[in-house]
Amino acid sequence: MENFQNVSIVKKANIYFDGNVTSRTIIFADGEKKTLGIMMPGEYEFGTGAKELMEITAGNLDVLLPNNTQWITFTAGQSFEVPANSSFKLVVREVTDYCCSYGE
Amino acid sequence: MENFQNVSIVKKANIYFDGNVTSRTIIFADGEKKTLGIMMPGEYEFGTGAKELMEITAGNLDVLLPNNTQWITFTAGQSFEVPANSSFKLVVREVTDYCCSYGE
Repeated sequence: MENFQNVSIVKKANIYFDGNVTSRTIIFADGEKKTLGIMMPGEYEFGTGAKELMEITAGNLDVLLPNNTQWITFTAGQSFEVPANSSFKLVVREVTDYCCSYGE
Repeated sequence: MENFQNVSIVKKANIYFDGNVTSRTIIFADGEKKTLGIMMPGEYEFGTGAKELMEITAGNLDVLLPNNTQWITFTAGQSFEVPANSSFKLVVREVTDYCCSYGE
């Protein structure tokens, strides 16, 4: 069972899309931030500030990355990167558990 | 913004009721465990092992505690305790963010 050690976690959840997407913010000793989130089935569009690395822990979703015309399916154990200051679309097919890391 | 400091967090979410109830497990330096969870609107019944203290961070729900006939409404900032080895029912009216602590 993979754990993140020696982190702080914000007690209050981040809640989006009426709770269909929620996440928890964790902060590492060196100041790095990640979010651990759940997406319920549905269609969503997100904007990025920093670059994002999305790792799928469980679930099934289709993703349309910025400047792409082709949707790509991701499942547990897979990941994708989204450039900074862009937006991407998701169609979540099955409840999806993810870990998001933020770049420079 | 309240944080839990110097904890470990399990990367993988706990997923119940088709994702309508999810939680993240955090473990403190002294071994104490809490879960931070989200409940979508709906009706649920849970069983306890250890005693549970449920703190509501956001949301609105009605709770039927064991051996009670009266439903009680809880909202942000309120909490309730559930005895060990019992079961309780919930009717979640609005997306609910909670922190659950476990007793002896």
